[in-house]
Amino acid sequence: MLIVMKPDAQRSDIEKVLHVIETLGFRGHQLPGENRTAIGVTGNRGAIDPAHFENLPGVADAIRVTQPYKLISKDAKPEKSIVKVGNSTIGGPELAMIAGPCAIESREQLFTTAETVAKSGARFFRGGAYKPRTSPYAFQGMGEDGVKMLAEIREQFDLNIVTEAMDEHGVDAVEKYGDCIQIGARNMQNFSLLKYVGKTRKPVLLKRGLSATLDELLLAAEYIMAEGNYDVILCERGIRTFANHARNTIDLSIIPAVHRLTHLPVIVDPSHGTGHNYMVTPLARAGVAVGADGLIIEVHPCPEEALCDGAQALTPAQYLDLVNQVQAIHEVVSEPAPVFIEDQ
Amino acid sequence: MLIVMKPDAQRSDIEKVLHVIETLGFRGHQLPGENRTAIGVTGNRGAIDPAHFENLPGVADAIRVTQPYKLISKDAKPEKSIVKVGNSTIGGPELAMIAGPCAIESREQLFTTAETVAKSGARFFRGGAYKPRTSPYAFQGMGEDGVKMLAEIREQFDLNIVTEAMDEHGVDAVEKYGDCIQIGARNMQNFSLLKYVGKTRKPVLLKRGLSATLDELLLAAEYIMAEGNYDVILCERGIRTFANHARNTIDLSIIPAVHRLTHLPVIVDPSHGTGHNYMVTPLARAGVAVGADGLIIEVHPCPEEALCDGAQALTPAQYLDLVNQVQAIHEVVSEPAPVFIEDQ
Amino acid sequence: MLIVMKPDAQRSDIEKVLHVIETLGFRGHQLPGENRTAIGVTGNRGAIDPAHFENLPGVADAIRVTQPYKLISKDAKPEKSIVKVGNSTIGGPELAMIAGPCAIESREQLFTTAETVAKSGARFFRGGAYKPRTSPYAFQGMGEDGVKMLAEIREQFDLNIVTEAMDEHGVDAVEKYGDCIQIGARNMQNFSLLKYVGKTRKPVLLKRGLSATLDELLLAAEYIMAEGNYDVILCERGIRTFANHARNTIDLSIIPAVHRLTHLPVIVDPSHGTGHNYMVTPLARAGVAVGADGLIIEVHPCPEEALCDGAQALTPAQYLDLVNQVQAIHEVVSEPAPVFIEDQ
Amino acid sequence: MLIVMKPDAQRSDIEKVLHVIETLGFRGHQLPGENRTAIGVTGNRGAIDPAHFENLPGVADAIRVTQPYKLISKDAKPEKSIVKVGNSTIGGPELAMIAGPCAIESREQLFTTAETVAKSGARFFRGGAYKPRTSPYAFQGMGEDGVKMLAEIREQFDLNIVTEAMDEHGVDAVEKYGDCIQIGARNMQNFSLLKYVGKTRKPVLLKRGLSATLDELLLAAEYIMAEGNYDVILCERGIRTFANHARNTIDLSIIPAVHRLTHLPVIVDPSHGTGHNYMVTPLARAGVAVGADGLIIEVHPCPEEALCDGAQALTPAQYLDLVNQVQAIHEVVSEPAPVFIEDQ
Repeated sequence: MLIVMKPDAQRSDIEKVLHVIETLGFRGHQLPGENRTAIGVTGNRGAIDPAHFENLPGVADAIRVTQPYKLISKDAKPEKSIVKVGNSTIGGPELAMIAGPCAIESREQLFTTAETVAKSGARFFRGGAYKPRTSPYAFQGMGEDGVKMLAEIREQFDLNIVTEAMDEHGVDAVEKYGDCIQIGARNMQNFSLLKYVGKTRKPVLLKRGLSATLDELLLAAEYIMAEGNYDVILCERGIRTFANHARNTIDLSIIPAVHRLTHLPVIVDPSHGTGHNYMVTPLARAGVAVGADGLIIEVHPCPEEALCDGAQALTPAQYLDLVNQVQAIHEVVSEPAPVFIEDQ
Repeated sequence: MLIVMKPDAQRSDIEKVLHVIETLGFRGHQLPGENRTAIGVTGNRGAIDPAHFENLPGVADAIRVTQPYKLISKDAKPEKSIVKVGNSTIGGPELAMIAGPCAIESREQLFTTAETVAKSGARFFRGGAYKPRTSPYAFQGMGEDGVKMLAEIREQFDLNIVTEAMDEHGVDAVEKYGDCIQIGARNMQNFSLLKYVGKTRKPVLLKRGLSATLDELLLAAEYIMAEGNYDVILCERGIRTFANHARNTIDLSIIPAVHRLTHLPVIVDPSHGTGHNYMVTPLARAGVAVGADGLIIEVHPCPEEALCDGAQALTPAQYLDLVNQVQAIHEVVSEPAPVFIEDQ
Repeated sequence: MLIVMKPDAQRSDIEKVLHVIETLGFRGHQLPGENRTAIGVTGNRGAIDPAHFENLPGVADAIRVTQPYKLISKDAKPEKSIVKVGNSTIGGPELAMIAGPCAIESREQLFTTAETVAKSGARFFRGGAYKPRTSPYAFQGMGEDGVKMLAEIREQFDLNIVTEAMDEHGVDAVEKYGDCIQIGARNMQNFSLLKYVGKTRKPVLLKRGLSATLDELLLAAEYIMAEGNYDVILCERGIRTFANHARNTIDLSIIPAVHRLTHLPVIVDPSHGTGHNYMVTPLARAGVAVGADGLIIEVHPCPEEALCDGAQALTPAQYLDLVNQVQAIHEVVSEPAPVFIEDQ
Repeated sequence: MLIVMKPDAQRSDIEKVLHVIETLGFRGHQLPGENRTAIGVTGNRGAIDPAHFENLPGVADAIRVTQPYKLISKDAKPEKSIVKVGNSTIGGPELAMIAGPCAIESREQLFTTAETVAKSGARFFRGGAYKPRTSPYAFQGMGEDGVKMLAEIREQFDLNIVTEAMDEHGVDAVEKYGDCIQIGARNMQNFSLLKYVGKTRKPVLLKRGLSATLDELLLAAEYIMAEGNYDVILCERGIRTFANHARNTIDLSIIPAVHRLTHLPVIVDPSHGTGHNYMVTPLARAGVAVGADGLIIEVHPCPEEALCDGAQALTPAQYLDLVNQVQAIHEVVSEPAPVFIEDQ
């Protein structure tokens, strides 16, 4: 159920509604919008009688939700969410650029890359300390030591840190030292982990699973939000298909679909999405052209020596060139004119 | 085998090489480039001894080809092919816009749409007279009557006609009345039809099959070229995957892969590629941003009344808006600067 | 529309109904069943008024069909179809075994293989004369010479001939010299070809396309039947997925789905379905266990020398062992007991 | 690296080798076989010099492993593993039947189902207490209370308990009260969880992920074994494809592939693999026919009232009929004769 408050509803009206929800044994989620606040109700097993709310002061409407998702939907919050990550944002008018190496390998590699990233004007730095690897014998990342190094990067370069966590221990470390907790594709339906990050107060970058449908992606975000963490950013990073010219198949059609159904920002990862250096820049351009709110890009000072996924990393020079190109595209798609006629 | 001629090779040198090839029982394919001509040899079952050619006048090199494709490859012709279609071209610096209804339904529908398309500045008109339909009981198209109507469109609006043929009869009709023969996704591996269009002298628009790999697409083009028709344009129109938010999954990563391996132009079909009106414009922008040479777009004066695929057709107004957006993107990606660093 | 005749309807009643259908401008398809005849009506664009038929003598019911398929459906003919192929049948109580080489390569190879196949008790021989090959430079088959050789096999070994046609010319040859026209996976939606074989009077073996849904497969069969050829046998031969341990992914769940919806027989091709010799026998057993009406198996006297698909061909000894195994499984699944509780 | 001991190697020889491995800073894994013991070495980053081991007493050979998997491979242990689960086994000559409801809903439902399962002769009971659900608002299972109920089932019916864990807390509960820890498809690449169950001493049933390749499945098993838990059973439960007649596409070709590469047992789940009641029995027959070591089947006393996945559950009567059918097939495939010629 969604309870839509009147534009002039008072703080006390909202508190009253939340109190009634709690009394009924459910959970209320405040979703403040530009013009009015909506309150999502979760925890109920069946339909709730709207009569509980309709006559409370400040309530405009109490709507039964028939879609499987509530909190992520535009019904709950028609305006697009701008998610605060460290001292910057994702989802606003600026294109969010997140860049850095796939894996943290050494102090030198990390600081060299951060210098490029800072120079490019990006506001976000990525780098994996906990690495989900297909083989147990592959490099598994530097762990907490790596996360601490990222915290130093933040201090020195004023970059906000986005890094993956694979379990509760990792979430605790990233919550402590980083700015945004990344949930990787292979954990997109690790529901216990989703609930755990839903209880933190750091924003979450949720990557689409290799064979996740749109619905499954949205419901994974809903898992996080249902626990009270509303700062979720989605990420398209390629799906698994029969096609073998790229490591994954980037599915850019999901970007307008996400914007149509939800208020959440969504970014594109052309590095994992293609797996080939020469494809990263063209697909980055395409991702921005289709309407993504940002990009996450792998950069390595020396891709051929990378311990992980070197084939897809850009050199610093290539990355700086990419930034120029995508910024020019972003300007075109941001023009006020009747640029986005999405549907009728 | 590829025989590369010296830049200063004479016409007579080329004739001599072609004659030797014929004498050996094979077929020679002249592939003129900017600086030099290459001659592809097909028809051999095993390796050919380069000694047959190395000492002929004007021959620079005779190279064994280890890839499965010969004529489409950049080894054969390093410069990009610009394919002449009617009185215009596809593959050159201008973005090729092909637009029109999915199916020809009536004289009025066709002429109304053509007016919009002509007004938009497009040089190509599409419209299906022979329709491949999943059900035998669905509208199968107007057949030859439709093709003749397209010829009238050409006269009246100076638009070049691109239309599908499904069999030899259709190929004959399109060769007679149209400018470019489209081979649909379901016929991409109809090898008899590929050989048949390979014997015509009209350019061929070859759409990627629903489950075709890059190699299979390229070898389908090679089938056409091996018969002597070198004017092939490839088209990405979405592949079949588990994803269900769009009718097909547009795989834009194939565009840089095609440009890397072949000299052929490649365009994108965001209408069939998505199946949803609201996705067409964003994906059209993405297609141009990724580097496609053109777009093929469905336009209908009244999409909700379309006999075929109305859900994905743009209204004339939406189409004109799309053109503005993609032209702006095309300008960005065409800038002389170091825009395309595709690989190192 | 389906017109169901009473069990005691006379020949003249049926003729009368067919005549009325024709008068209305449609086409009638007699589908005789064990207890009563149904008549499918095709050619109509909208609904037909049942009043045209309800009061005719011998008519039990006139039913509007809401599914996209009419003639293949169990509504039209509840009993399973037993298709006559040469002097034997597919779809009856006996397991149909179709075996032979992928491609006809030589007289000796063909006759050696036929000897094994005949010895095994199989009633059907396969062998490709027209070969759909991904590359234009791969062996394309022996053509009409090959088909004529197959006719000799029939004479000498009393085996019924199943062989692929890729175009009208091939269909004519197979109709003349063979017993069953195979339509390959890549031509499953070559609608012109489907219509053409629908006009022949030889049974058709229709292979599922690499990315065909159940509906698309059934509607491809409907294309053939709508032209008046009701002798269609379906074939599961593996679909294209991300899985890479086999050449295709055999989808055995389609067998019970086909039996549930249609009266047509369906067989399994574990050779193309897996692409690996060591998988053929286990998957053949599984195909029979799941309820297929037959198998089509590649056998080669010397697989390592095969010009086409040698990696999946069985040796004669392996094939004879396969036959023993699948016959034992067939006995188990054919037991009268309550073996098939398909649904409730 | 694999160190293969001589057939007459002494206990002390093995201890000596393990000690050397430890001294080098690596981990040794004893894999006892019928005729000889092999010792897998993990923890090394590069190649190990075989000279460390070749001259130790009792060592037959020290082999560099080039495949990505070591402990699961037939090189390490040529004989098939028979995994002990409670007081029974999986992987031996008997077909392992695991049956029970998808989710534990109530005491009554559980005990009624267990009665059927025990009566059928099955040795294993399944029932989900922790349920991975796509939506946060769907029934999430009874948790630890459910697991405790399963322990009662074991006491009363002498059935061994197989149940899923989704996180460390769940693993602890299942280790305490159950007999076999199931890792679900969505957690197949939850590497932290794999490592955690690798440290328990209860056998693990590892389900293939929805888009997992064979290699990824095997390496997930390797994750568990690399931690010292060698009792892993694999499970095919259907993959995600474009096909829409079943919920997933059961890929039975993976069974012979698993048997070819590894010594681990592998079972089939036709309930999740198809999602439709009427397909379960045919696909169960096929799974046994292809060579699976067992089946896991959903049974519910009243499928239409099930809180989870009712559409695929069998009634008790259907389940008993399935058992009869698959046992008959199992007898056929187990015959001593030359039944399994897998490869040459």
